[in-house]
Amino acid sequence: MFDKILVANRGEIALRVVRTCRELGIRTVVVHSSDDRESAAVTAADEAIHIGPAAARRSYLNMAAVLEAGVRAGADAVHPGYGFLSEDPDFAEAAEEAGMTFIGPPPGVLERLGRKSEARSLMADAGLPVLPGGIGSQDTLEAARRAAADAGFPLIVKAVAGGGGRGTRVVHHPGDLAAAYAATRRDARALFGDDRVYVERYVTGARHVEVQVLCDRYRNALHLGERDCSVQRRNQKLIEETPAPRLPGELLDAMRGSAVRGALAADYVGAGTFEFLVDRHGEFHFMEVNSRLQVEHPVTEMATGLDLVREQIRIAAGEPLGLRQQDVRPRGVAIECRINAEDPERDFAPSPGLLTEFRPPGGPFVRVDTHATAGMGISPAYDSLVAKVIVWAPDRSGAIARMRRALAELRVGGPSIRTTSDFLVRVLEHPSFVAAEHDTSIVAEMRRAGS
Amino acid sequence: MFDKILVANRGEIALRVVRTCRELGIRTVVVHSSDDRESAAVTAADEAIHIGPAAARRSYLNMAAVLEAGVRAGADAVHPGYGFLSEDPDFAEAAEEAGMTFIGPPPGVLERLGRKSEARSLMADAGLPVLPGGIGSQDTLEAARRAAADAGFPLIVKAVAGGGGRGTRVVHHPGDLAAAYAATRRDARALFGDDRVYVERYVTGARHVEVQVLCDRYRNALHLGERDCSVQRRNQKLIEETPAPRLPGELLDAMRGSAVRGALAADYVGAGTFEFLVDRHGEFHFMEVNSRLQVEHPVTEMATGLDLVREQIRIAAGEPLGLRQQDVRPRGVAIECRINAEDPERDFAPSPGLLTEFRPPGGPFVRVDTHATAGMGISPAYDSLVAKVIVWAPDRSGAIARMRRALAELRVGGPSIRTTSDFLVRVLEHPSFVAAEHDTSIVAEMRRAGS
Repeated sequence: MFDKILVANRGEIALRVVRTCRELGIRTVVVHSSDDRESAAVTAADEAIHIGPAAARRSYLNMAAVLEAGVRAGADAVHPGYGFLSEDPDFAEAAEEAGMTFIGPPPGVLERLGRKSEARSLMADAGLPVLPGGIGSQDTLEAARRAAADAGFPLIVKAVAGGGGRGTRVVHHPGDLAAAYAATRRDARALFGDDRVYVERYVTGARHVEVQVLCDRYRNALHLGERDCSVQRRNQKLIEETPAPRLPGELLDAMRGSAVRGALAADYVGAGTFEFLVDRHGEFHFMEVNSRLQVEHPVTEMATGLDLVREQIRIAAGEPLGLRQQDVRPRGVAIECRINAEDPERDFAPSPGLLTEFRPPGGPFVRVDTHATAGMGISPAYDSLVAKVIVWAPDRSGAIARMRRALAELRVGGPSIRTTSDFLVRVLEHPSFVAAEHDTSIVAEMRRAGS
Repeated sequence: MFDKILVANRGEIALRVVRTCRELGIRTVVVHSSDDRESAAVTAADEAIHIGPAAARRSYLNMAAVLEAGVRAGADAVHPGYGFLSEDPDFAEAAEEAGMTFIGPPPGVLERLGRKSEARSLMADAGLPVLPGGIGSQDTLEAARRAAADAGFPLIVKAVAGGGGRGTRVVHHPGDLAAAYAATRRDARALFGDDRVYVERYVTGARHVEVQVLCDRYRNALHLGERDCSVQRRNQKLIEETPAPRLPGELLDAMRGSAVRGALAADYVGAGTFEFLVDRHGEFHFMEVNSRLQVEHPVTEMATGLDLVREQIRIAAGEPLGLRQQDVRPRGVAIECRINAEDPERDFAPSPGLLTEFRPPGGPFVRVDTHATAGMGISPAYDSLVAKVIVWAPDRSGAIARMRRALAELRVGGPSIRTTSDFLVRVLEHPSFVAAEHDTSIVAEMRRAGS
């Protein structure tokens, strides 16, 4: 087992990783930017190393600085959290070269699954259902037009190097394709340094359902059930829950089986997530693999009783999976709400600033993953996530009631800060969410209806 | 279902009850003393009514003031929490007369089980193993001597109206019986207003194991597994866990079955706890029934996924048990540590005062039930409980590691305040606790050994 783990992240997830390391008896060293000097993770870790100014590209994305900190501290492994360098094959490779085990899949797997069009082809070959569209990337408008003919309209133009909905464009009419294609390429170059894009059918009225997998180094793979993440704004998740409500058991079984098959086909190692869309006909379609821990992993933990960070660390240390598929017995319903410093009235624009009030909810079956404290600044340099409120209950109506109670207890704010909390309460009360008849358009529809 | 519940308690348990009521859509009115004006429960409840000064007998024990508040607020039920009036048959009866359903067993059951010697006889008749000793109370020294001949030495002299170890005396030699008998009667009169006492064998090297039962009004009864509460100081619990570690399955099954049988024999209604001692020969002996929610109920909740306050409320509202014995499937291991404002160096003497620092631990599978906030005063008028830290893990070693991590995160203190936290960490590291070879003498032995 490792002696000391470098935590190459910030915020709640850095604290989350430190906590599990402490339980495993592993020391931790956390890197941090100037803005995060007094962050919860820095306080909780055994050691902390300052690696640069607030701007992520000069600190958390500065591979050399991160790795140097790890080497200096004598870390023998690195946990990348999510975002930042977590899916960067170069970082994974450089970490290994620097003598630190990368807690995640091997660089080659990160690379293959990171190119979303390649992942799509790989999964199609493994027998997973993928949406109609182009094969590989479409490097000319002409190629995009041919792929569009296959995909049909509406379609979505996606960055090969993208993921999580970032920088995608939906095209409803053939006449809009050229502009969207050009704009997506521009954005892709700016966002990911890779301007390749691809085209696939855009599914409306769909549910976003993802399957959590765990794979060890010895080709043992299993799934930990799924998460429904259909409550999204601008393709970013706001509420996640497990199990996926109101979907037939055979469909869920097929998705879970597909994820395990896909993971084996990709030689996956570690914790990963297979994202699917379930269309209104009850058909599911592979979208992408997230080769890291997800923000919403706690709902899976609440239902299964597993600590996913612990599993990641054990797998990275070369241990075989400690459980078989039949040992995974999810229980009840878990829901997560993301409390972001964003203004729902202004299309969820970030609203950073000083957090003058922060009081998390508590009590039975309520978990709060957060780095926030009253008096902390929410930096505009980073993601707007302030806290994740997660609840568990034996059934979905109980979980919704509990979440409403938890959000009513939450006190979070500051002079310039707006949050998603009140909006999320309205989602939890929305008839189509309550009946689990919602799809990924629920937030947009609520905004249009003025709620 | 009830519209509004009167919460006739304070501290963490009042907040605990308010939370569940909110989830059930039931309004709450909390009574409070002058010292608790700004307490967490008062803030969280829909209404709060001041009923008197700090001294409990002039507020929380003032039956008339409590009930008047409930009537004034239009409450249709009362939850008594634990302690205070929770096991007082007169209070239960007066509440019903005032038009409020008492959330607990009927007055007659409270009375019968409250007289500990009578409960002992009742359970013996129901076939539960009881310790050798007298039958009923021993109202003269002569009767106590006869009972002592049956019990043998060491024996324990207990108040008929007592419970939870309060005001008991252990007698090792026949020559000490007379003095102990007289002193226990004196204490019993002062503590409980009833000087009757009884004698039973005192078991050393025992484990304290209690079984949680739930019974509806229709003679449906089931158990929710047991809790091991062997880590005690002065007969007061410090650490509780479920399941009871290292005890044979047949023994646990027998205890669970005995508790259900005893509950039916007592016409029990609501949530109750059967306390047993397991001696070093692996035999178990009935001690007493606690006719209310226990402080340590959260460990049962973590393992079973049930909300015991919700079950209490549903039962009081006349609903039948919503689950059968086979639906109760406890999972993993849960441990609770009581963080009290007490000085372990001074035999756990209360150390009230201003709480200048309070930061609860968080993260996966950690629950904190508390009313504490930094800046709050710990009143000498009440119990010294500041917070209950509860953890869950798939196995006991994982739960112990998690609790050690949680207690390392906890920040609690003030100029005059000492707490049990550091001492409890030493218990968690103690070889006999880790191996689950400890018994109720572990704390005394640690103190003697100077740790």
